[in-house]
Amino acid sequence: MTAKAPKDSQIFMTELVLPNDTNVHGNLMGGRLMYWMDIAAALAAGKHCNAPVVTASVDNISFENPIRLGNVVHIEAKLSRAFNASMEVHLCVWGEDHSQQYKYKSNEAFYTFVALDPNRKPRSVPQVIPETPEEKALFDGALRRRQLRLILGGKMKPEDAEELKALFTTTRK
Amino acid sequence: MTAKAPKDSQIFMTELVLPNDTNVHGNLMGGRLMYWMDIAAALAAGKHCNAPVVTASVDNISFENPIRLGNVVHIEAKLSRAFNASMEVHLCVWGEDHSQQYKYKSNEAFYTFVALDPNRKPRSVPQVIPETPEEKALFDGALRRRQLRLILGGKMKPEDAEELKALFTTTRK
Amino acid sequence: MTAKAPKDSQIFMTELVLPNDTNVHGNLMGGRLMYWMDIAAALAAGKHCNAPVVTASVDNISFENPIRLGNVVHIEAKLSRAFNASMEVHLCVWGEDHSQQYKYKSNEAFYTFVALDPNRKPRSVPQVIPETPEEKALFDGALRRRQLRLILGGKMKPEDAEELKALFTTTRK
Amino acid sequence: MTAKAPKDSQIFMTELVLPNDTNVHGNLMGGRLMYWMDIAAALAAGKHCNAPVVTASVDNISFENPIRLGNVVHIEAKLSRAFNASMEVHLCVWGEDHSQQYKYKSNEAFYTFVALDPNRKPRSVPQVIPETPEEKALFDGALRRRQLRLILGGKMKPEDAEELKALFTTTRK
Amino acid sequence: MTAKAPKDSQIFMTELVLPNDTNVHGNLMGGRLMYWMDIAAALAAGKHCNAPVVTASVDNISFENPIRLGNVVHIEAKLSRAFNASMEVHLCVWGEDHSQQYKYKSNEAFYTFVALDPNRKPRSVPQVIPETPEEKALFDGALRRRQLRLILGGKMKPEDAEELKALFTTTRK
Amino acid sequence: MTAKAPKDSQIFMTELVLPNDTNVHGNLMGGRLMYWMDIAAALAAGKHCNAPVVTASVDNISFENPIRLGNVVHIEAKLSRAFNASMEVHLCVWGEDHSQQYKYKSNEAFYTFVALDPNRKPRSVPQVIPETPEEKALFDGALRRRQLRLILGGKMKPEDAEELKALFTTTRK
Repeated sequence: MTAKAPKDSQIFMTELVLPNDTNVHGNLMGGRLMYWMDIAAALAAGKHCNAPVVTASVDNISFENPIRLGNVVHIEAKLSRAFNASMEVHLCVWGEDHSQQYKYKSNEAFYTFVALDPNRKPRSVPQVIPETPEEKALFDGALRRRQLRLILGGKMKPEDAEELKALFTTTRK
Repeated sequence: MTAKAPKDSQIFMTELVLPNDTNVHGNLMGGRLMYWMDIAAALAAGKHCNAPVVTASVDNISFENPIRLGNVVHIEAKLSRAFNASMEVHLCVWGEDHSQQYKYKSNEAFYTFVALDPNRKPRSVPQVIPETPEEKALFDGALRRRQLRLILGGKMKPEDAEELKALFTTTRK
Repeated sequence: MTAKAPKDSQIFMTELVLPNDTNVHGNLMGGRLMYWMDIAAALAAGKHCNAPVVTASVDNISFENPIRLGNVVHIEAKLSRAFNASMEVHLCVWGEDHSQQYKYKSNEAFYTFVALDPNRKPRSVPQVIPETPEEKALFDGALRRRQLRLILGGKMKPEDAEELKALFTTTRK
Repeated sequence: MTAKAPKDSQIFMTELVLPNDTNVHGNLMGGRLMYWMDIAAALAAGKHCNAPVVTASVDNISFENPIRLGNVVHIEAKLSRAFNASMEVHLCVWGEDHSQQYKYKSNEAFYTFVALDPNRKPRSVPQVIPETPEEKALFDGALRRRQLRLILGGKMKPEDAEELKALFTTTRK
Repeated sequence: MTAKAPKDSQIFMTELVLPNDTNVHGNLMGGRLMYWMDIAAALAAGKHCNAPVVTASVDNISFENPIRLGNVVHIEAKLSRAFNASMEVHLCVWGEDHSQQYKYKSNEAFYTFVALDPNRKPRSVPQVIPETPEEKALFDGALRRRQLRLILGGKMKPEDAEELKALFTTTRK
Repeated sequence: MTAKAPKDSQIFMTELVLPNDTNVHGNLMGGRLMYWMDIAAALAAGKHCNAPVVTASVDNISFENPIRLGNVVHIEAKLSRAFNASMEVHLCVWGEDHSQQYKYKSNEAFYTFVALDPNRKPRSVPQVIPETPEEKALFDGALRRRQLRLILGGKMKPEDAEELKALFTTTRK
């Protein structure tokens, strides 16, 4: 199983915000966006490990700027780090208004997937080798985010989360 | 603006998992579930504040048990705490297989919404008065989760998160 | 096969009226509502008999108050009576406008389902034991409605419908 | 306002049963069929009165033969009779399996619509002039069905339903 | 395998333009119309050959008049000619505004389908026997269109397209 | 109005083939693919001209390889040439099976769009300046394809189509 670079599994998804995707304000509903993000991230994870995957968890997501009806949604998904059978996918979402020539960041997120073998049991996946400085920073932060997930899921005691303690001594960007 | 109890805004949503909601394993896709959860939580928030709301953030979600094609999804959403213009909604999700008479916990989550006035600016919302022990525990934990959101969103320094530090001295259930 | 109470199979479904559910007046289309009612009623019937079910018939439905775009639809479905292999499900539908704090009855209906065995043949189902006065009234009226269905379906002669004749001597509420 | 023949408002709708329209047996769900029937009937009513219409009621529907995944649904809708502001539409539904060269009746139904003026108030509609023997029979039966609707809706006492009494002295086909 | 007339496989499809089918102008999106046309044409082809079919190609389509939100789409599909394993289907599309009593031609198109045997290999299909003058003209033009398809698909040299040369000596209606 | 390069309006769309997108063979329906292609092409055209656009025509499309349920659809759309108020968009479509690590060309197509001003009248658009050899070949072929569209739409006589005659003297790739 050869390790792969993040760019090998990069997915670009582009969607148009249609009436049924919006709330009464004419803005894209958060849930509809999370649905698209889940598919984009699952495709990136599936491309990395060449096996079926299932969503294991989603990290905290903040929605910054609303995306308007008729605007375009751009989602970029790529692997940040792989653990034994699980893969962390980093997502960036932008909205774009073609008539206004205005493109804006909507949010950033991390989804985690597990690869399955034909009996639906977790199977191991290739490692991720980060290449750019940004990819390396995402790779390095993955341990800390994983400890946070384990604590929030009740599977690790905070006092055992060595990496996460860094979060409380230096400010995270 | 009168404070309200969580049960005043409780929403029960029931959905059937149809073919288009599933991945190649015949399991409900995580993104489709997050879409339904967003609507259930938005309805609870809208009922609490009697105003239009938008999704502001979603906390870490772990998907425990896959929900199968043809199974039923039960989502219960109710307010855990209100801040100035924002409301934290607690969600519990179960799957149920009627033929097998088997009901199982799928996941738990917190979605945060902001209430908007007619000019789409944040407006203040009624307070939440928890009644049951479980509601009180959710109410108390809300400050800690809020600090975590602010840190993860880059809006608070970890060293200023007084409440959150409790997380690192006692194990969270 | 143990008889069950109506509350054992009660289903609460909550839906948000989105743009594609509405006609040019911005009101929920009757057909879309009947689609949701069918799923809610099928879930109640499936929960009662723990087997796959199919819709056998739908009684006369009157739509009283239109439900508006952005409003909430509440559907409550529970068993009113079971016959040999068929189950009558009683449905109540309300609309709700959270901003106006206004909740209104939309309509009431009866859907009938048949339980199927693995060869898709009808199989017998548990009896229903009504508990509340309202449930008892629904249980008692079920025979009369069943005779009406048989007559309307051309499977019974009006002169043989003993129960239904009551309809023509006393006013039905 | 000139009276019109049923054929002037006849609508033929053809749909393909896709995976998401089916239950776990691979059969078209009753609710999905009622959704399509509502649209076909609304189009026939709108064509008859040249105004927006809303669904007022649906008569008892029995589902005879299940329609399979991949089969074709044929819906024929035409006006049977018009009253002051309301129109009764008669629907016939067939399933068809092209590979098996097999076409089968699924069900028959009556939907009633009300025409609306620009202020969403009921407005009067053209009369229906039946032409064929079958259309005349549908026209004649409309009064009886209307009385049944009024009784079932609690708006008429059974003893006042002169036309409907015929139902209890002669067998209805 | 008996030859069939075009009318034996004729399909009438009627659809209502709903909000999610429209662009920001409130007009039916071209892609949504092509989706419906594909299904209508596939049903006509499947009815002609009584076997599963797949879309092989679509000829040039021009969209003349936009179809508005709330308007009705009428699609008529029938076989124009059959070749060995492929069938050309002719489609006519109209829009209709019931309130304005206005019906307008939207576009005309040719879709080609291939019939498949149980192993998903092409299988031969019945011939088409045109009956009306219009059907005969469509039948005659089919050879020319087929040569154009082969040239555009890079499977025939223009100089070998005997029939198509007629296109360059007489104006096609 | 500054001319733009094709890469300035390039759109990458990625979709997952879900159950409802497939026919009984489990292959993506042609109509569903044309729907996605229409949206991708419309986004590229809108990005080029910074104005709302409508689909004017679609050139002949051949579907080479079926795309399977659970596979990924990649659509790349970019401007090939602009005329006065119309823009020709070139589309390439691939299917990809992540588990099989197999990526295959599905089809290529040209969609034409018209830009609209606020009164829904055609407005002029920036020119396209091709950069790569492939873009130049697409740019050069655009005149020929436009003449073919005009002839097929009955708006030009074949004998006047100077560019198109080249098609009949040299083989097109």
